[in-house]
Formats: sequence, structure tokens, C-alpha cells
Amino acid sequence: MWSRLPGVGEKTARRMVFFILKQDPLWVSEFVSTISQVREETHHCGECGCITDIEPCQICRDMTRNRKIMCIVESDEDCISIEQAGIFNGIYHVLGGQVSPLDDEDIPEESIEKLRQRIRDLKIEEIILATAPRIEGDLTAFAIQDALKGMPVKISRLSYGLPVGGSIGYADRVTLHMAMESRKEMS
Amino acid sequence: MWSRLPGVGEKTARRMVFFILKQDPLWVSEFVSTISQVREETHHCGECGCITDIEPCQICRDMTRNRKIMCIVESDEDCISIEQAGIFNGIYHVLGGQVSPLDDEDIPEESIEKLRQRIRDLKIEEIILATAPRIEGDLTAFAIQDALKGMPVKISRLSYGLPVGGSIGYADRVTLHMAMESRKEMS
Repeated sequence: MWSRLPGVGEKTARRMVFFILKQDPLWVSEFVSTISQVREETHHCGECGCITDIEPCQICRDMTRNRKIMCIVESDEDCISIEQAGIFNGIYHVLGGQVSPLDDEDIPEESIEKLRQRIRDLKIEEIILATAPRIEGDLTAFAIQDALKGMPVKISRLSYGLPVGGSIGYADRVTLHMAMESRKEMS
Repeated sequence: MWSRLPGVGEKTARRMVFFILKQDPLWVSEFVSTISQVREETHHCGECGCITDIEPCQICRDMTRNRKIMCIVESDEDCISIEQAGIFNGIYHVLGGQVSPLDDEDIPEESIEKLRQRIRDLKIEEIILATAPRIEGDLTAFAIQDALKGMPVKISRLSYGLPVGGSIGYADRVTLHMAMESRKEMS
């Protein structure tokens, strides 16, 4: 069962089991109850869909955030990544899926319906699409753009380009191409 | 001496020496003469400054390329990276240095002078700055922009952003910030 965890193979799983066997039973019961508790006490926020233990979530109830700008992500994991980077002060909308014809996946219809409703209710002015920088993310972004057609909202998307801190030589061919395509004029 | 090669430590150096000892003397002399030959027969192109064995280089003499658009790189290694990606059809200018106050490095003055001369002579219309996506690259880009002030040429720079093929969660904080800052409006 341990080897089902991400990043854990059979050998690491065995090490984990032997680690548990060596621990104090009290520590083990605490560890186990923390895991169950996290699983039981969290749910998806009724407004944005991000993982939370209160309703609505900490982000949705924070009135100091800019509630006119909304970042759309595929999963709550992406939401947490952006939150931890501390680069965005608006609110979120978690799609809970992506457009992936190969895996026969799609964005849940109710998620799109709810997105439209929230844009209308909150009078959102700008949507930032933070879908994954890959083909499925492109398709997802286009699907959202299509779904919001005619709504009075500006739609932008995170830029493709060179990651900060590398070098030209480290960048792969496709990334270099996108960085060249979306080059920015210096003012 | 082997351990001075990039990516080669003491142990790999020893393996290389023992590998050489095991080879046919003929192969060794051929290997050695190829190395000297490469070093002796190549030089920097008198026009763009990229590494070449003919004068001017293959790129500078190729009349099918767009000679109105010029990509500025820090080193000839960067030039080869962009060439191999096959994403650019203009000509290059190799600075042969970067602005790095900490390492007390700067762009050679003659390189900037030659750049100005080439822009005038070739009537360049657009400059694409392909300096490294890091602080030294930023400083280098600003220095070039400053040096070309007043010249009738459009200056743009490769975009920062998410590398293609990853996910939001893989991107580091600064890259996410740049991707958010330079988000592109979808049309």
C-alpha cells in the first residue's frame, strides 16, 4: 500500500514499514490519526473549489484580496503552488479537470457553469488562465476561452518562456521557440 | 588535466586515462590530432563573432536568411543552441561577454562598437536580445539597450515564463512570478 504513494517505490515502501515498526506506538497512533483527520476534515470550498477545512475557504473569505481578478487552475494543487509563491492577490477557481482527448478527460460541465455564475455574481474584470504549460493546458485554456465567449471579462494566460535562473543552453527547443515567439519589446 | 574538462571530476578523469591506455596507438593519435585540428582551424567569425572554420561563417554568408533581424547572444555556445533549435532565421551578434558586477565582467567595448557599426551597415530593423535568463543577462540586456539608444531599431527580448511541458507545480517561485507578470491576453 505504501508504494501507491507518489515517489515511493517498493524499496522505499519497505524502509517506511520498518521505520514504523521501530517507532513508539504512541507516535504511530498520532501519525495515523493525523492522516485520517486531514482526510476527513477537509473538503473542497463551495465557492472556489480549493481544498479547505473551513467553509468558505481562507482565500474566499479574505476581504483584503482583489475580488475582481480570478485565477483559473486545473487542480487545487496548482492553487496551493501559486499561493505559496505569493505572487497573486486575487481569488481562484479550481476546474477539477483538464481537456485531454487522449485520456478521455474533460472539464466537468458543472465547473464551467459555476465559473460563469461566479464571474457574473462577482463582476470579475480579469481572468488569468493558469493551466498547465503543455498541450492539455493549451486545450483547457481554449475551452475556457470558448465557454466564456461574449462575457465582458478580459482573459489572459500565464506566459510561456525561459525559466528564471537558467541559461540559453539549458532551455529545450520548444521552450526556446515559445520564448522567441513571445519576445517582449523593451521600452 | 582531464579533470579540467567540464563535468569531469577526479574519478572520471582516471577512468578516461585508463581508457586511453587501453586503446590502439593509431586511434589515440587520430583522436589527439582531431582535437588540435579543431582548436587550430576554428576562429571567431569576423562579422558575427560565432565560432567557424570559414570566413565569414556559414550563417553570415547564407543569403537566404533574413538579414534585417539580428539576435544578440552572450557567447557562441548560445548561438549554437539557438541554431540547433532551428527557431531563428536571422543573423547573430556574439557579445563575447556579459555584465556581471560581482565577477567584475563587462561586455568588451569593441564588441558594442562593432554591433553599432553592423546595425548601421546592414540597416537592421529588429534586435532580439537572447541574453541569459538571470540577473547578469538582465543587466547585459539593459546595457545593450542603453548602448543602442537613439538608433532606429526595434529591440525585444526573449520572454520569461513557464517552460513548455512542465506543470504549474514544477515551476519555481520567481518563474511563476515572471509568468504572471508577463501574462498574455488571449485574443
